Amino acid sequence: MALMSEDRLFPAEASARAVARDLYAHVRDLPIISPHGHTDPRWFAENANFPDPAQLLVVPDHYLFRMLFSQGIPLEKLGVPRVDGGAVETDGRAIWRLFAANYHLFRGTPSRLWLDHTFQHLFDLDLRLSAETADAAYDHIAERLRRDEYRPREMFERFRIEAIATTEGALDDLKWHRQIRDSGWTGRVVTTYRPDSVTDPDFEGFRANLRTLGEITGCDTATWQGYLDAHRKRRAFFREFGATATDHGHPTADTANLSTEAAARLYEIVSTRDATPDEARLFRAQMLTEMAKMSVEDGMVMQIHAGSRRNHSLDIFARFGRDKGFDIPGRTDYVAALKPLLDAVGLEPGLTIILFTLDETAYSRELAPLAGVYPCLRLGPAWWFFDSAEGIRRFRELTTETAGFYNTVGFNDDTRAFPSIPARHDVARRVDCAYLADLVIAGRLHEDEAVELAHDLAYRLAKQAYRL
Amino acid sequence: MALMSEDRLFPAEASARAVARDLYAHVRDLPIISPHGHTDPRWFAENANFPDPAQLLVVPDHYLFRMLFSQGIPLEKLGVPRVDGGAVETDGRAIWRLFAANYHLFRGTPSRLWLDHTFQHLFDLDLRLSAETADAAYDHIAERLRRDEYRPREMFERFRIEAIATTEGALDDLKWHRQIRDSGWTGRVVTTYRPDSVTDPDFEGFRANLRTLGEITGCDTATWQGYLDAHRKRRAFFREFGATATDHGHPTADTANLSTEAAARLYEIVSTRDATPDEARLFRAQMLTEMAKMSVEDGMVMQIHAGSRRNHSLDIFARFGRDKGFDIPGRTDYVAALKPLLDAVGLEPGLTIILFTLDETAYSRELAPLAGVYPCLRLGPAWWFFDSAEGIRRFRELTTETAGFYNTVGFNDDTRAFPSIPARHDVARRVDCAYLADLVIAGRLHEDEAVELAHDLAYRLAKQAYRL
Amino acid sequence: MALMSEDRLFPAEASARAVARDLYAHVRDLPIISPHGHTDPRWFAENANFPDPAQLLVVPDHYLFRMLFSQGIPLEKLGVPRVDGGAVETDGRAIWRLFAANYHLFRGTPSRLWLDHTFQHLFDLDLRLSAETADAAYDHIAERLRRDEYRPREMFERFRIEAIATTEGALDDLKWHRQIRDSGWTGRVVTTYRPDSVTDPDFEGFRANLRTLGEITGCDTATWQGYLDAHRKRRAFFREFGATATDHGHPTADTANLSTEAAARLYEIVSTRDATPDEARLFRAQMLTEMAKMSVEDGMVMQIHAGSRRNHSLDIFARFGRDKGFDIPGRTDYVAALKPLLDAVGLEPGLTIILFTLDETAYSRELAPLAGVYPCLRLGPAWWFFDSAEGIRRFRELTTETAGFYNTVGFNDDTRAFPSIPARHDVARRVDCAYLADLVIAGRLHEDEAVELAHDLAYRLAKQAYRL
Repeated sequence: MALMSEDRLFPAEASARAVARDLYAHVRDLPIISPHGHTDPRWFAENANFPDPAQLLVVPDHYLFRMLFSQGIPLEKLGVPRVDGGAVETDGRAIWRLFAANYHLFRGTPSRLWLDHTFQHLFDLDLRLSAETADAAYDHIAERLRRDEYRPREMFERFRIEAIATTEGALDDLKWHRQIRDSGWTGRVVTTYRPDSVTDPDFEGFRANLRTLGEITGCDTATWQGYLDAHRKRRAFFREFGATATDHGHPTADTANLSTEAAARLYEIVSTRDATPDEARLFRAQMLTEMAKMSVEDGMVMQIHAGSRRNHSLDIFARFGRDKGFDIPGRTDYVAALKPLLDAVGLEPGLTIILFTLDETAYSRELAPLAGVYPCLRLGPAWWFFDSAEGIRRFRELTTETAGFYNTVGFNDDTRAFPSIPARHDVARRVDCAYLADLVIAGRLHEDEAVELAHDLAYRLAKQAYRL
Repeated sequence: MALMSEDRLFPAEASARAVARDLYAHVRDLPIISPHGHTDPRWFAENANFPDPAQLLVVPDHYLFRMLFSQGIPLEKLGVPRVDGGAVETDGRAIWRLFAANYHLFRGTPSRLWLDHTFQHLFDLDLRLSAETADAAYDHIAERLRRDEYRPREMFERFRIEAIATTEGALDDLKWHRQIRDSGWTGRVVTTYRPDSVTDPDFEGFRANLRTLGEITGCDTATWQGYLDAHRKRRAFFREFGATATDHGHPTADTANLSTEAAARLYEIVSTRDATPDEARLFRAQMLTEMAKMSVEDGMVMQIHAGSRRNHSLDIFARFGRDKGFDIPGRTDYVAALKPLLDAVGLEPGLTIILFTLDETAYSRELAPLAGVYPCLRLGPAWWFFDSAEGIRRFRELTTETAGFYNTVGFNDDTRAFPSIPARHDVARRVDCAYLADLVIAGRLHEDEAVELAHDLAYRLAKQAYRL
Repeated sequence: MALMSEDRLFPAEASARAVARDLYAHVRDLPIISPHGHTDPRWFAENANFPDPAQLLVVPDHYLFRMLFSQGIPLEKLGVPRVDGGAVETDGRAIWRLFAANYHLFRGTPSRLWLDHTFQHLFDLDLRLSAETADAAYDHIAERLRRDEYRPREMFERFRIEAIATTEGALDDLKWHRQIRDSGWTGRVVTTYRPDSVTDPDFEGFRANLRTLGEITGCDTATWQGYLDAHRKRRAFFREFGATATDHGHPTADTANLSTEAAARLYEIVSTRDATPDEARLFRAQMLTEMAKMSVEDGMVMQIHAGSRRNHSLDIFARFGRDKGFDIPGRTDYVAALKPLLDAVGLEPGLTIILFTLDETAYSRELAPLAGVYPCLRLGPAWWFFDSAEGIRRFRELTTETAGFYNTVGFNDDTRAFPSIPARHDVARRVDCAYLADLVIAGRLHEDEAVELAHDLAYRLAKQAYRL
């Protein structure tokens, strides 16, 4: 039996399944637009072979090691590096065996779908992973990873990626992007401006980061105007390397619209001493509005990823650092939070702000009503824990009736896991085709419209919204 | 191909579809009870022909112009009147063409279903609207609107409306209702008492409204008792014109039960100077309880529509005024908020309070548990953004298991768009029949019970709950 | 026609239904693990026949009398005892007739499914209950209840219960459990340590309860250390009667981790005078962390049932007391609330904390992300209002993709209604099989994995998580 069904994620009922198959046939082979993600530009700059299967697929993937940890497996045994440089497992095969022996934990999860897809379609490996098959799978994948055709650029082309965006901090020198540009390779890899380290007073090293920002740009970041100018310069620099978008990861969606004087006074506080929680919150809020105003000036699309309570476990943060699967969503309000920004620039022609949520309750109550009326607002796809078959389906069910399809922006894979990119886009395409097929069978849409929409959702909307 | 499928909104699976068809056949032609809405009684009083297709279908419908605005189309081009009386498009055909060229934006939305239903069933127009078909559709509909059989009373009868409730403010003279009554026409058009302009200190002109209320009723609205008596007189006056219900549109569901002295002191404050936000909130809260107490006295059904943050965009409010599609829901609490009112009158025999929500998360967590135990509480149907195929389905899925069907009150169309009334009731009937059919096929209900329930949900429960 | 379909709760579509049937055939006859509930140990100790049908099925079941009350039927007529000992209906047949005449109110509710299952499978009664069939049903059931085979122990065996947990307060003498143990009967009935009456300063008689706790244990409950030691002794005592778990019913999931000194000072306050709401909240919060620390010591599984606003109606509480169907859920936060406890003991090997919610919005946003990474956390099943076909389905849909199946703990019936136990487990098994079948048909799971999972969800996970 094949590892994966050809009809996976399609409706069970025969007539709807037939429509879904037909729609999917129209979009299966479309190029991939990946407008938001966290792949490493160094891969494409150097085009070196990936290391062993565990280092490629398990160690960097917090979806995988968090699930294993939740069942009592220490992170050290999974090769996750310690902050103090202490010993962790480094033998790829040992890590892989532990992972394989616990593969049943992923039943019903999106990780399972992505992994099986990667095994079957990328590595031509039709084995179900388990303790018994661990070594055979490891050897098979390891052999493939040594081949030229499994290098990053070759995979990029094999995946039919038309454009991919990476994400770099405001202080990044973009040297890998420069190296890609200078290499003559024609793959389109663009950067994204992510200024959290210089807009969030709670970010580690915030005040030192402001000084570095001044040095890089030649602007006087001791003053509010100099600081804003430094952002403008960095945004322009990022645009030189293809950036069409900025990205902002904030604990809430709070925005503010202070007078210039009040903003300058607040900047003086946060740039010279430890901010109180309220000052930090207000500064982040003000900076979202400042970034939106700059987007009106320079045409960059703005992305707001709100709602994650980062590094929930003190102990894991102390021993392993950031981004170790302990980022837990909380309730997020958008209606009051976005009002200051929207009153400032919400009706500006040409402005695009893409909203993401980790609080699904906001889809139908807040986000669809907002995006269904403000011309600058678009809904980002189901994100993070909701970037899954049922999460994507719920996103459509909870937003389409109020905001329609055309206030959404297609799919984002938002991933660090390069081999999973085609698998994730495939899931999104299948789930969207299944949803459209159900609408057709329910008499809510004509089939020719569904064909057009399937194409829009898989390709056109992302390309248009992100101006790629 | 017909514009609409005969089986629309029914389950895909054949056995469930067959049951749904059968149930629907029992209720398709039942009279319409429309116990809550915003049609204009003047239509039925004067029975004049409606103007052109755009003025009938597009300009007054905030569902339509908000979606077009969200994609960058200025409200002026859609004929939406400006507060300052400045120039806006007045050519119905130009508005219609713009609307038609953007008809794809409504794919997957309830507006699309209502419009296609109206085209096909009301206007015998089997064309899919688009830039190409805009003129043909316009001419066709315009011709129909000139016929006698498309006048308001004729449409009322054609729609098989048994009773319809309009909504009037507490200061309204009900002259159109009087004219209907005096005309000898037998169509049943009743009013509803909506006192927000004299119960909400934040309402424009609140204190002037109180004076007017005093003048109209001959009560001394400078005192708390006089003010309450004025409400009693107005409620009685509205009942003369068929009113069986009151309606209250509040930002929250907060209620209070102050002592008479405390309430009188609060009234003195809000009636003589600008209220603070807390005073305004407390006064609205107290007035919900006062209205509930009057309902115990006079038997009027009380409706609470809570949770909308009105006029979210300052700029749109300044240029175009209220109700321009910028009313955005927010989180709504019912459990703590309703407790004062429920402790005051929640167990009173004969009292009926119908609760509506724009926060779907309250359905299963708060509203169904409350309505499933308090004898005065009933659940209003899925409202506003949720008055849609998937919204109605979620309403049933999230409330039935806890509150049952008999603590719900059938369907409300809640519409200003007269031609959409049969289309909306048809959607509700189909979705309810589909839900019941799924219960039958899942062995959760016998088919004869489903037939009875289909009738209850389409007709009886609304008639009983609203005492129509 | 049979009262219940053999295929109830299975998918409508034929291929999925076939898979569901097959999965269900594997689990239908598995023993029942009932690790959390509220059956009365006295039943199993004395093994006396149950009284009449109304006293067995209607009077003690708040799901039933709350629904009847919501439609205006006084609790007195349903035989619910008054606090003042005043007259209520005592004639079982009169209560039964009133219930039967209103049986239509339960259409679409889980109560209906449980009752029909009980009628058909326990009492071999194939009648649909109604005013017409009330007497026949009453006589039939009454006759059965007089038979030996319908005594508690015989039903326990007939239901194939492998283990059942009751719940007793911290001050209980466990005499019925002792009597069961001493009787030589081999049915496994264990207790659960529920200390709310001595951990919640808002509990009636809290300070007197502390004194009793001291007397029972010989510990000096005037001091913080003596109080904690008293808990340790009671936990050990409960373990003598099979307890493997503790249970905590709190209005919120708040936890705290005060210093020993601060905790001792707080204890001095709450044990000597009326606590303020903030003090009471903080003490409850601290006690959750203390209980978790004791679980690390003694291996007892900890259950947190958070989010119910108890005794919502003052009047009903005054006239009928606690637990009369007026417990209404409210919003519940877990992310910030649990952090102190999790920072204290969240990574301890061997600790298990099972979280329950009445706020479904927390499933995908908070609970699945938390349980998907903290090794001590497991998700309790859909609880109370959500212990229903659609509630259980939503639980799976909203948690599986993030937390997987193996961070959940199977089913809890959580019931006082002994005859409903097999019916409730049957609903859970069917809904889980239907969900797994849908995953198989959607290509998300192989069928052999689904068979294993069906067994896990129906039996193994509960047994393992509760260490039974």
